[in-house]
Amino acid sequence: MNLLMNITVLDVLEFLGTYAFAVSGIRLAAGKNFDYFGAYVIGMVTAVGGGTMRDMMLGMSPFWMTNPIYLVESFVAFLTVLSFNKVLVKHNESLFLFDTLGLALFTIVGLEKTLQAGFPWWTAIIMGTFTGAAGGVFRDVLINEVPLIFRKEIYALACVIGGNVFILLNFFGLETSINEIISGISVLLVRYLAVAHHISLPKLGKEQAEE
Amino acid sequence: MNLLMNITVLDVLEFLGTYAFAVSGIRLAAGKNFDYFGAYVIGMVTAVGGGTMRDMMLGMSPFWMTNPIYLVESFVAFLTVLSFNKVLVKHNESLFLFDTLGLALFTIVGLEKTLQAGFPWWTAIIMGTFTGAAGGVFRDVLINEVPLIFRKEIYALACVIGGNVFILLNFFGLETSINEIISGISVLLVRYLAVAHHISLPKLGKEQAEE
Amino acid sequence: MNLLMNITVLDVLEFLGTYAFAVSGIRLAAGKNFDYFGAYVIGMVTAVGGGTMRDMMLGMSPFWMTNPIYLVESFVAFLTVLSFNKVLVKHNESLFLFDTLGLALFTIVGLEKTLQAGFPWWTAIIMGTFTGAAGGVFRDVLINEVPLIFRKEIYALACVIGGNVFILLNFFGLETSINEIISGISVLLVRYLAVAHHISLPKLGKEQAEE
Repeated sequence: MNLLMNITVLDVLEFLGTYAFAVSGIRLAAGKNFDYFGAYVIGMVTAVGGGTMRDMMLGMSPFWMTNPIYLVESFVAFLTVLSFNKVLVKHNESLFLFDTLGLALFTIVGLEKTLQAGFPWWTAIIMGTFTGAAGGVFRDVLINEVPLIFRKEIYALACVIGGNVFILLNFFGLETSINEIISGISVLLVRYLAVAHHISLPKLGKEQAEE
Repeated sequence: MNLLMNITVLDVLEFLGTYAFAVSGIRLAAGKNFDYFGAYVIGMVTAVGGGTMRDMMLGMSPFWMTNPIYLVESFVAFLTVLSFNKVLVKHNESLFLFDTLGLALFTIVGLEKTLQAGFPWWTAIIMGTFTGAAGGVFRDVLINEVPLIFRKEIYALACVIGGNVFILLNFFGLETSINEIISGISVLLVRYLAVAHHISLPKLGKEQAEE
Repeated sequence: MNLLMNITVLDVLEFLGTYAFAVSGIRLAAGKNFDYFGAYVIGMVTAVGGGTMRDMMLGMSPFWMTNPIYLVESFVAFLTVLSFNKVLVKHNESLFLFDTLGLALFTIVGLEKTLQAGFPWWTAIIMGTFTGAAGGVFRDVLINEVPLIFRKEIYALACVIGGNVFILLNFFGLETSINEIISGISVLLVRYLAVAHHISLPKLGKEQAEE
């Protein structure tokens, strides 16, 4: 239950991550001329969609149904995009940082929640990845685009790698709170390197398609 | 449990609403040249998709899995669109009325079901909105269009407003069966005014999009 | 529990079916230039998506969360498409056979699991159809195409017909293991005849669309 003990640091990280996720959804919705309500919904889906799917697969009610903070935060994200998007654009690097912090944190939270529910380690890695990356997939489905994460710089794979790091260090008995930091940083690092050097996975092509 | 006591009136309302929802799905599928089976599935998804998502989030099995009426009704909707669509077109205003009645009823049903399951009031408003509006979103995703409700006249917001009316009047101690009628009518009214006067929410644009 | 007794034959059938489903997803992802990770995810979704939805509707955690075989198999499918797609293309008829075997088996498995969970026979037929056909729908939504099964040769209807055969023979007291074979073959037969003779359902058209 290390997550609950250092609640302030994690709260800040989760707040920043949720905010950055919601902003990304609202901006993409703006590019499609969504109305205010639609854009807010897309922001919310981007921020909480992955964790929602995870909780439903684990047989729990989605986490945001008992805590209004995510609803409020998505609204704050909506208001800032609406009013100060030009200011936000100047701080796109901060948003990228928040987004990546969110990705790392969501991965570890999803992974630990799945382990605590008694599922095997490889399911936990999948659920961690889901928590971090599925919201963006739902966002792209709703704005009627092919999901970005299946075509651009390494994203979900950063969650998979960080998840494996956590499981491995856990297997060797590392203390959980230290493990959370190390595996979280490994998500951050993989994602940062991928974007900084435009590293994408190889793509399949015509010769692998149906004929 | 007022909903169960005046079962005949509500049954008629729900029947009309489900029918109108299914018709809207089948017609949009027809515009995409779906086959009979596909159109029927889209009609069914439009009619029960929102309530299905709500039930799964509440940790229950979807309501239609124990009552075949929705399956049968979607089939009736399919048959009438197939055979008498020209007659239906002449009564588009009746269909709009049924659709709006359905929207109002589904919202209140979803809201009360969520309160009874012990969730907070704001979750109940979200679930009411989900029950009324999410079926149309699933329909649009399946026919590969950007969801209509994120771009056209006020729709889901009518559910949000009606939901807030219900919670507020409930807070002030109004008797539930009267509250159901008043808040249902407020959904109807908002939706009717929005369509009659082509009231849409403002849209986000390029200046809010990612650059 | 006949399914558990003759585990070897059914294991082979399920393995072949899962493989064929995953291959179909990975090939379609290749046609859209997905990267390796994206293509693998699409393969996995195609193979397990239907059963996942079924389990969540039945109130259970998805079957693949406790057995890594489906994860591994989708990876094998990915590797063979990546490396030997030209060889696979020469054996497209085998893949069609595997896909159809999978369709038949998934239908019967989904149907029996739903009956065992205490739901009515018509829900079981829907869930059987879901198990067989919904993975392909999720695949098509993720690659941003209108779902194939709503427009092409009879597919999901084969599951519906096979499901009805099972329920009918079960009603007349036929021994379950024999019933599984007969109703499975009826799925195979309907699907084979549909593809061999290009039998599609009639389509809805403009005159059924909204005006």
